[in-house]
Formats: sequence, structure tokens, C-alpha cells
Amino acid sequence: MSKLRTPKGTLDLNPQESLTRDEIICKAKSVFEAHNGVPINTPMFELREILLNKYGEDTKLIYNLEDQGGDICSLRYDLTVPFSRYLCMNRIQRMRRYQIGNVFRRDNPSFKTGRLREFVQADFDICGPAQPMIYDSEIVKMVYDILESMNLPYPFTIKLSDRRVLNGMLMACNVPEELQATTCSTIDKLGKLSISEIEDELLTKGVSGGSVDAIIDLILKDRKETPEETITRLRNIAKDGDFAKSVDEMELLFRYLEVYGVRNVKFDLSLARGLDYYTGMIMEAVYEGVDVGSVAGGGRYDGLCDSLSEGTMKVPCVGFSIGVARIFALYPPSVVSSDVFVGSGYGLNIEERMRILSDVWKIGLRGETPGGKRVNYAEQVEYAKKGNFRVGIFTGDKEVTDGTLNIVYFETMQKRSIKRADLINELRAMFNFN
Amino acid sequence: MSKLRTPKGTLDLNPQESLTRDEIICKAKSVFEAHNGVPINTPMFELREILLNKYGEDTKLIYNLEDQGGDICSLRYDLTVPFSRYLCMNRIQRMRRYQIGNVFRRDNPSFKTGRLREFVQADFDICGPAQPMIYDSEIVKMVYDILESMNLPYPFTIKLSDRRVLNGMLMACNVPEELQATTCSTIDKLGKLSISEIEDELLTKGVSGGSVDAIIDLILKDRKETPEETITRLRNIAKDGDFAKSVDEMELLFRYLEVYGVRNVKFDLSLARGLDYYTGMIMEAVYEGVDVGSVAGGGRYDGLCDSLSEGTMKVPCVGFSIGVARIFALYPPSVVSSDVFVGSGYGLNIEERMRILSDVWKIGLRGETPGGKRVNYAEQVEYAKKGNFRVGIFTGDKEVTDGTLNIVYFETMQKRSIKRADLINELRAMFNFN
Repeated sequence: MSKLRTPKGTLDLNPQESLTRDEIICKAKSVFEAHNGVPINTPMFELREILLNKYGEDTKLIYNLEDQGGDICSLRYDLTVPFSRYLCMNRIQRMRRYQIGNVFRRDNPSFKTGRLREFVQADFDICGPAQPMIYDSEIVKMVYDILESMNLPYPFTIKLSDRRVLNGMLMACNVPEELQATTCSTIDKLGKLSISEIEDELLTKGVSGGSVDAIIDLILKDRKETPEETITRLRNIAKDGDFAKSVDEMELLFRYLEVYGVRNVKFDLSLARGLDYYTGMIMEAVYEGVDVGSVAGGGRYDGLCDSLSEGTMKVPCVGFSIGVARIFALYPPSVVSSDVFVGSGYGLNIEERMRILSDVWKIGLRGETPGGKRVNYAEQVEYAKKGNFRVGIFTGDKEVTDGTLNIVYFETMQKRSIKRADLINELRAMFNFN
Repeated sequence: MSKLRTPKGTLDLNPQESLTRDEIICKAKSVFEAHNGVPINTPMFELREILLNKYGEDTKLIYNLEDQGGDICSLRYDLTVPFSRYLCMNRIQRMRRYQIGNVFRRDNPSFKTGRLREFVQADFDICGPAQPMIYDSEIVKMVYDILESMNLPYPFTIKLSDRRVLNGMLMACNVPEELQATTCSTIDKLGKLSISEIEDELLTKGVSGGSVDAIIDLILKDRKETPEETITRLRNIAKDGDFAKSVDEMELLFRYLEVYGVRNVKFDLSLARGLDYYTGMIMEAVYEGVDVGSVAGGGRYDGLCDSLSEGTMKVPCVGFSIGVARIFALYPPSVVSSDVFVGSGYGLNIEERMRILSDVWKIGLRGETPGGKRVNYAEQVEYAKKGNFRVGIFTGDKEVTDGTLNIVYFETMQKRSIKRADLINELRAMFNFN
């Protein structure tokens, strides 16, 4: 019995939890479909080679399958690399796709905050060439609409930035190129670490005191700026090249978001995102005042297909992932309920109950009847109330003879007798069918 | 590029295939819900120990995760053993649950017949004590209703038997007890092997010539009997004990199936089912005249919780699994379509297109607009027709000034002009909203 548990970092979902998660996924899927997304499915594991060198320091978190002969495989770490592999394999240059599925990370699990070793991601990505920030702003609009549809009692913020802005800022802070990646990793910890802890870590990593001071002043300090103010400030730093271009594009992004009616957005210069593959806009959404980490994350990754296809496919992509388990941690639990309990008041009458149930199922209602060797009215009512059944249809020895049935409305315990022949019409009326 | 493929025996599903599979799953799920099933989810992998000694000779097909420290795990082989583990862990004695998810088997793959190494199962099980064959007949009724709802142009047959009947028949054929399991494995190959190949295999395994002749005569020969005739014949062989009891219960099963209006059922004495854990009724559904193997299978397994819980939980269970990939191989492909294409006839007008799209999405319709740097009417129409969009809403420099829009119905290419302010009402009318 000691062995009857799930592996570390994984969970069973009971019916209520499963229904709650389905509800969250369903809301995300509605927005995916509204934005004309089409679904794909990729295997739960990939050739290991495809996953290597995609996730920076997190590569060590990949789950490997045992070598049992044949292909050397690993469980998928996200849905983005498999999607890029799919695009390259099928030579697809343009697509709006969604995928909802489990991913696997050998991370330190925490059930409370929804950080698990197996969890569902709901991803949407737009690939194909476009003018700057058109698809990027649509992606942010989608995250906004999805989080709005969750209707949770917490305000959320969508933090936005651009990898090119961050790179430019690190240059402006005189961080040597070889230290920029590791500096980003440290910056990404803001929130988990205090500013002075970040300062210490950067100094330990060999970033100069002057650079660290500049990073704190220009990047980490929360200046309570509007996006316009941040952009104006950046214009004074970003004189030319990709940096200046990305500042212009950030301005365009905020312009488009206004057109789309997207609120709750913030230009956050300290946003870094852990994954290696981002090349442009990056985003992350959090609920304020709750400790569940980011509930959505994403950005632009224009180089992933290029690298996977060894330079034969250049497909610009931008997308995001909804952290279903994180939203789940905040979401009100669903209610498990049912429609019709079929019972017998006196006598077993199993075949008559089977006939009644067939009628219930035929018109699309939910129903069941007990399979035991005796019937007890009080026990049946108790079971039906516990299962949130709406009505009970009771036959009985007398009712079979008379051609009648008794209906019980469990909420009020009101009863009435109907003709057996009228059952389907009565059910249709009770459940508001046309 | 040579590495850009999925692992052996696994497949990507493209959008059309994904939608088709969703449609099949959705039909199964409707029946699961009608029968008051509630969903659970279990992890994609289990502690390896839990999966061992459950699948007979097929244990060798289990995928193992690499030992990277911590728990020793394997990918799940089916959804039945994880469900039983769930019941035991949570001390649940009564449940009607469904689970839809991927399972993994290192088998010899065949794409044509839908035999893959990763595939979706859709399982429904009823656990808890009941009078004989009440839940068993409900399970068969469900398989019947699910296959009926698929509406495929092939007749299907649900083959039924009982493990106790098969054991009794082997006793009657004088097969020694130590050879019964391996004899079942060979009998299970009927259809893949001819009767004379089965004869050879049984003789090689050490079954006596007399027993083999009896097996062919009593079990394998298709006597074109009705269930009633088979039952009458068995009554002459089954004089007492479990064998006689199971014959009586098979009679009851067919009686209940008649009450439920289930047709296409057959008492098939050669039905064996590979898995070790079945203890009573067994069933398998096949489409006639097509080569995709069984599309549903299941049965009663009253001992699995007992064995998993080391004797502390006795939970009678009966259930089935729908082979989604096998039905998929026969199912007509879904059509990928969309609602509203938003374009511009002359001039880019990207912000106006974003505003129009926001209206489209707000009322729940699907829509997109191109993100390119120029617009060309003919190209836009071509793209929209290829994507099966129903209507196009075109703005343009002139329309922005006039406060109008042009609607194009792609099927007829009929056009008309509307006021921009009327867009939402026009869309509601076009798509038959209330």
C-alpha cells in the first residue's frame, strides 16, 4: 500500500478538479478559435536531439525515456519546440495553430503555486511574415481576453518588453557581451529575489560595480512610468540600430493595444523570460497579490525554425502559453451534478428501470439507476441528493401495473405522478427542450 | 534535417485530423456523460512497480522513463490500472468515471490499421457492487450507442463472452490447468491466424490432439448459432459451479441487452481478450469487412483493486475502452472552416481592421486579417476561400471616410455595402444569433 501514490510532482485530478480544469481550458480554447486558430497534436515525446540546446540552463529538467532499443527520446518540455519541428517537417510558412497538452519538467514541485512536473499548457502561435507588432499585439489581446474571461477576483497585469530592448539596455550599462545571457538569468529572478540579492548575484558573476548600479537604476528600479514615459526615456539611450528600432516598435505595440481596447499592460524593462529562443517582443501575465507565478507567458521567436531546419526554413513566429495549473490554483471549483435518478419505490423492477433510463439517455439527459439487490426509498433519495441529481423518476410494483411513474424534484422534494407513456414529453418540458 | 521526424510509431495530427479526432472523442464523451460518468485525470506515467504483473506477456511493451534519480517510473500502458490505483489510494468503493487520454505501448506499429505506440483511449468504468450483469449490460449498451453515434457505413458486431465460460470450456476440453493461459493467448489470435495455424500452435505448446480437436469443435468453429442456441448448448456441458453460473448470467446479459434495445451482439466463445485482469464478462467490438482491429474492448475485472491494495480493497469493476485511433482510420475527415475574413480593398487601414476584428471576436465569431505590408483584393479573396471563410468584411480608404464596409459572401461572391455602425447587428443577423 505504501506504493499507491503518484510519482513525485504529479497529481491525480478528481472529478471536480477535472471539470474545473476543463472549464479553464474551454475558455482559452474559445479565444483560440475566435482568432481562427486550428488545432494540432504532437507526440508526448520527441527525438531527444530535437529538444537539446533549446532551453538554456533548464535543459537539465528534461525527462528522458529509457533506451529500450530504437529511437532515443525525451518527454516534451514545452509545446513550442514540437510546433517548430512540425512547421519545418511539413514546410509550413503560415499558420495560426493552438495545441493543448501536457508537458514535463523535472523541476522542484510546489502544489500550492501550481508548479508541477507534469502540467497542461494551452498554446497559441501565429507564424508567418507580417508588419511589425501586428501579430504581436494580437497575441497580447488574446491573453487579455482569456484572462478577462476567467472572471477571477484578482487584478492582472500583462508585462511587456522586447529582447532587443533588454539587450540594448545591457549594452548601455556596459555589460560585456559574454556576461549578457547570465545577467538576464539573474534579472529574470526579480520578484523572487530582492534588488540587493540581485546586486550580490551580479557582482559574484563578475559584472562590474558601475554596470550593476546602472542596471539597478535603468532596468530594475520601478519608476511608476507610463509606457509613453518609458519609451521617451529609452529614446535618449537608444540612438540607433536594433535597439532604436525596437523602441519604435514598442511604441507601435502600445498603440495597437489601445486600438484593441487592451488595458492592464505595463512596459516592464526587468522582464527577461528564461527561454533561449525569444528574439523580439516578450510578455508575461501575473495576477496581483497572489503567489502563483505567471499565468501566461510568451513572445516572438523568429530563429527557432531556422535553427531546427539548419537554415532551410525561416518562419517568424509569435505566441504564448496559458499556465492552466496556475489559473486552476485560483479558480472556483466546478460543481458535479446530474439530471435524472431512476429508482423504484417498491419492488426491484430492474427491467422497467432500464427502459426508463433508455428514454432518458435517448434524449441526451444524464441518468443512472442503482444496481443493488434491494431498493430502499430513503437511501435512493439520499444517494440522488448527494450526487446533485435534479429529478428522480420512480417506478414501483404498483406503478408498473398502473402505467404510471412518480417524479420527485429533489430541491423541494415536491412529488407528482405522471403517465409512463408521457415520460419523454415530461422530461423534455422539465429540462426546457424545444 | 534528417532528424526532423516524430519517434517511431508516433504521429502528428494536422488540424483536419485533430478536429476529426476531437469529433470522435466528443461523441464518446456524450455517451459517457449521459451514463452519469465523471472525469478523472491521472499522470502520464506511474511508479513502475504499479504497472508490473498486470499485462501478462505484454509487460515487455511498457515504456520506461530513464532513472534520473528519484522515483522509478513508466509511461502508462492503459487507463485501467491507473484508475484502480486511484480507487485504492482514495478508498473509493463506488464510482462511474471516464478518462480520455494517451497510453503508450512499444508494439510493432502499423499506421494503416491505427496500431500506434502512442494512442488515445476513451475509457468508461462502473465500479461498485451490483446484481449480476446490470452494469455489464449497461457497458455493452454504451458501446452500442457510441458506435451507432459514429454513423459509419460499416456494420459492427459486439462480441460477448465471459472468462468463466472460457475457463469452463477449456476444462471440458481437458486442457490441463497449467496450459489454460497460454491456450487462451493462442485462441485470442483467431482471425489473425487460421484455424489450422491455431491447431499447429496449440499442439506445439503441448496441448493434446484430443483437446485441440475439442477446442476446434466446441470453441473455434463458427456454428452460426443465436445466443440462445449457444446457451442451450453450453447448458449441456456446464453442469455446476462457476461455469454453470456464468452461463445463466450470459442468458441474463442477453435478456438485459434486449430490454436496452441493443442489437448487433454475438455470443462468441472464441473471444479471449489478452489482458490478465478480466474475471467475468468480456467484450470486443469490430466493424465488419474492414481491417482496423477491435474498436472497443473491455470487461469485468473484480480482482484488480484487491491485488493492488494487497487485499484491503475489494471493488468490483466493469468497463470498456474506445479505440479512438481505430475509429479514426474509418471516420470521414472534418472540414476546417472559419467565419469572417477582415480585409481592405484599397489602402492598408490596419487599425480600422483591428477595430472590426475586435467586434467580430467580441460576439464570438472566428476571424482574422492579414498582417502584410500591402493589400491586394484578389489575393485576399483567394486566401479567404482557401480557408473556408464564410464572409469577408472589407474596409478601404474610401470606406473609412464614408463610414461604410463591404460584405462579400464567398460562396456566391455576392457583395453589398453596409454602414460601419451596423456591423455587429449585421453579423448577428448573418450568423443567426438571437
